[in-house]
Amino acid sequence: MVILIQCKDSIGLVAAIAQVISESNSNIIAMREHVDMAASRFFARIEIQEATDTEALKNKLKNVLPSDAEININPLPDKKVVVFVTKEYHCLSDILVRNYFKTLGASVECVVGNHAVLEDICKRFDVPFHFVSHEGKTKADFENELHEIVNRYQPDYLVLAKFMRILSADFVEKYPFKIINIHHSFLPAFIGANPYKKAFDRGVKLIGATAHFVTNDLDEGPIITQQTIPVDHSFTASDMVRSGKEIEKAVLAKALQYVFEDRVFTYENKTVVFE
Amino acid sequence: MVILIQCKDSIGLVAAIAQVISESNSNIIAMREHVDMAASRFFARIEIQEATDTEALKNKLKNVLPSDAEININPLPDKKVVVFVTKEYHCLSDILVRNYFKTLGASVECVVGNHAVLEDICKRFDVPFHFVSHEGKTKADFENELHEIVNRYQPDYLVLAKFMRILSADFVEKYPFKIINIHHSFLPAFIGANPYKKAFDRGVKLIGATAHFVTNDLDEGPIITQQTIPVDHSFTASDMVRSGKEIEKAVLAKALQYVFEDRVFTYENKTVVFE
Amino acid sequence: MVILIQCKDSIGLVAAIAQVISESNSNIIAMREHVDMAASRFFARIEIQEATDTEALKNKLKNVLPSDAEININPLPDKKVVVFVTKEYHCLSDILVRNYFKTLGASVECVVGNHAVLEDICKRFDVPFHFVSHEGKTKADFENELHEIVNRYQPDYLVLAKFMRILSADFVEKYPFKIINIHHSFLPAFIGANPYKKAFDRGVKLIGATAHFVTNDLDEGPIITQQTIPVDHSFTASDMVRSGKEIEKAVLAKALQYVFEDRVFTYENKTVVFE
Amino acid sequence: MVILIQCKDSIGLVAAIAQVISESNSNIIAMREHVDMAASRFFARIEIQEATDTEALKNKLKNVLPSDAEININPLPDKKVVVFVTKEYHCLSDILVRNYFKTLGASVECVVGNHAVLEDICKRFDVPFHFVSHEGKTKADFENELHEIVNRYQPDYLVLAKFMRILSADFVEKYPFKIINIHHSFLPAFIGANPYKKAFDRGVKLIGATAHFVTNDLDEGPIITQQTIPVDHSFTASDMVRSGKEIEKAVLAKALQYVFEDRVFTYENKTVVFE
Repeated sequence: MVILIQCKDSIGLVAAIAQVISESNSNIIAMREHVDMAASRFFARIEIQEATDTEALKNKLKNVLPSDAEININPLPDKKVVVFVTKEYHCLSDILVRNYFKTLGASVECVVGNHAVLEDICKRFDVPFHFVSHEGKTKADFENELHEIVNRYQPDYLVLAKFMRILSADFVEKYPFKIINIHHSFLPAFIGANPYKKAFDRGVKLIGATAHFVTNDLDEGPIITQQTIPVDHSFTASDMVRSGKEIEKAVLAKALQYVFEDRVFTYENKTVVFE
Repeated sequence: MVILIQCKDSIGLVAAIAQVISESNSNIIAMREHVDMAASRFFARIEIQEATDTEALKNKLKNVLPSDAEININPLPDKKVVVFVTKEYHCLSDILVRNYFKTLGASVECVVGNHAVLEDICKRFDVPFHFVSHEGKTKADFENELHEIVNRYQPDYLVLAKFMRILSADFVEKYPFKIINIHHSFLPAFIGANPYKKAFDRGVKLIGATAHFVTNDLDEGPIITQQTIPVDHSFTASDMVRSGKEIEKAVLAKALQYVFEDRVFTYENKTVVFE
Repeated sequence: MVILIQCKDSIGLVAAIAQVISESNSNIIAMREHVDMAASRFFARIEIQEATDTEALKNKLKNVLPSDAEININPLPDKKVVVFVTKEYHCLSDILVRNYFKTLGASVECVVGNHAVLEDICKRFDVPFHFVSHEGKTKADFENELHEIVNRYQPDYLVLAKFMRILSADFVEKYPFKIINIHHSFLPAFIGANPYKKAFDRGVKLIGATAHFVTNDLDEGPIITQQTIPVDHSFTASDMVRSGKEIEKAVLAKALQYVFEDRVFTYENKTVVFE
Repeated sequence: MVILIQCKDSIGLVAAIAQVISESNSNIIAMREHVDMAASRFFARIEIQEATDTEALKNKLKNVLPSDAEININPLPDKKVVVFVTKEYHCLSDILVRNYFKTLGASVECVVGNHAVLEDICKRFDVPFHFVSHEGKTKADFENELHEIVNRYQPDYLVLAKFMRILSADFVEKYPFKIINIHHSFLPAFIGANPYKKAFDRGVKLIGATAHFVTNDLDEGPIITQQTIPVDHSFTASDMVRSGKEIEKAVLAKALQYVFEDRVFTYENKTVVFE
């Protein structure tokens, strides 16, 4: 069982929290805490062994924490997710494989594609696929269709697994810090479309990928994790695309693991990730 | 101020420790703890802001901890070190530069070399250099000379910065977990002499470096940190030596930082490193 | 079209080769050559644009090269492979996905498992799965069954995608430098069974994976590529297994790409890999 | 001896070059070539063993190459460099140490600082230090002083080893592709001042360093090499500065090695680096 706490920092928080848990006869398996000194903000993630009365524990914790404290006590991971895709298969396939072998830490309720090319792989894994074309529609109509489908499944998270449409502020606001995107560059470099083309033109010696929560500002949301790999002059733009896919897939997988295991806090457009 | 605690694990340790510190009106800046479940062993490193009565705090902690608890309360880093070298300059120079600019986290009391080639660079930095040749002597005599010099300086740590003589069990036992070595391979691969030659012959695609505490078993002591870099078929054995030096220097520097900042615990021939 | 040449080194080889290709009106897209000075051995990989009379070109090259020259002129990649597995899904799934989307650079003819658990995923991708249990049989009988199946498909390569049985010298000799294995450590460290357990016990700060050709000596064949990732004291042995799977999958995928694109030479138990 | 060739691409260049070298009885130790298909540009770096008549060889090469060919035949590395610094010691010290031990591949003629704090370390290594304050002067006057000093030494390269003043277009134009800078971010992210502060504010999970040639556009010149290291939420902005220094030093050292060994071509604001 995982307890997540975020609140204003003050002296004695760790002692107070540990005391409460100790009194409830729960054994702490792992405890991680962090204080952002500049923001005077306290974060803790505590894994405890014993199942316990969640509500009672939460109330006891409330009594010893500052009034602004956000306390989440999550049962074992069983998140539900909806995945948005366009045409590229690498991130989706990786998710479908982990989902099929029950190692994703979440269950894929359905996949929504604005192209139909990935329908077949979803079928092979018995995952519902919804084709919602963006063509010949206003953005609002397109997003209403998306929203209508998502709504049916009531997912905990939306995963943009190389979904190549920009979502409007209206849509994003419906799922605050619930939409996870993989961007194919080491942000904040190469924001927006065609980052590999831009990387090639700039002559960089690294390419990268960044998994982040989606906010109203394109590619500006809190970063969960990111990674780079070396490239050199022998890479064409399409070689970069090809090599980049390998880390896009790896970075998204890692970010999803962190999120689904309740290891990620967001605040001030940043994340705290207890790995 | 840093508090290091290592003891048998039991329920409520974090709460008890935090309680004691809270009662002594010290603010916890950073706290890291780890439980080795298999070994049922508890480790904590606590950084506190206020200077406080060290002995009183230690006694209060003793009262709430298991009887086997090792408690170290260190003042700000001001370790004293002696460095052993042979002929290669890269690790020593890096240490001398940091020492000169007061960013080593320790002070280099002297350098001891079994060759004289590094005497000049030491002189340039006003660091005493002692030349102790191993030639024409028994190992015991050689080591007695080393020991006699070290003894004069009463250092907290001995750093083997590419010292190419194997120290005897007798010598090592005088400085338990106080001798830090840089080995030029990713241990446990390529133990002993000429690791780059062995790496070249094996055709590996990685080379590495490992910083570890020295124990009686050659290159078998607790690993502090280690790193690898890619190589390919175009590397000759001497290209590997050259590239390897860059990470030897970096890995040793990192290990020294961890040790000098009191971030390293040793137990069961392993380390816990709170980075 | 790719031309691979390996022979004794001598002056003027590059000129001679380039001359022959130039005279055959082929444009060199990419040329890579390497001389192992110690072994006095020359390697070249030349990609040319124009389709050409392969036999004529080979003969012309023979005329200008030392008599020991091995010349391979490969058409576009269309290798056939057979994959051996046991129970772990991560490497196999990655291969099946790439195979399905035609980005593997080879076609998976069938999968052979000594357990049946991976049969279903193969079926989902319409790839034949053969279950060959090793239980209640001599090694010779088990391997005869394997060989009989492999023989039916006449593959160019056998891929051991976490196949947990050791193949005999007899079996291996039938496929010289045609069997590719993924070993779950940074070889030569932790040869043999349970490398993660050994890594955990040793307290290493890195874990790794190595893709190599299989020879008679266990885990001693020529290394194609290998990679490490950092770990720390918080990793249990099973955390290492879990994190390790991510690089096993990535390292095997990279090795297969190199092999299937004709970028790998073997000699003296080493490889030359023109990336 | 190293031969560098850059020209328009055409069929048969490798053959023609190899032929010329073969006829001059020189043995090719290593040859690397690259064609930028998009730019239709050919690059070659040839290392030959025998000393030879440089002018004759150059003329013979000219005869077989396109008229736009730039041919450089460099003797063994003995570049002269001038280093510009401000207050930070880590890059300068690394250069001074390599210079002192004759492994820099160039000789440091002098160091110029707009602060005096690094004068002492230069003196310790017997390297002339010139203090040129930027205070109370126009940029033009400041740069004239710099130029006057540089001019005295006639260096092949200027190295900005954490020189914190922006050089004007006028100054830069005097040393086209001869000024090498280390920028403390993974460009093109965090151009300009205070990249670590910006990185901290953005909440990135990587920091980096980039070595590049200086052109008129700030931090926009051709990138020679760059590298990143992971960071997390526990890093303050000053922790990033501290960790970043380690890679700044390593990245600059690598870039200087490439440049001083004649491994770097520039064109279209990019580099070709034959590692």
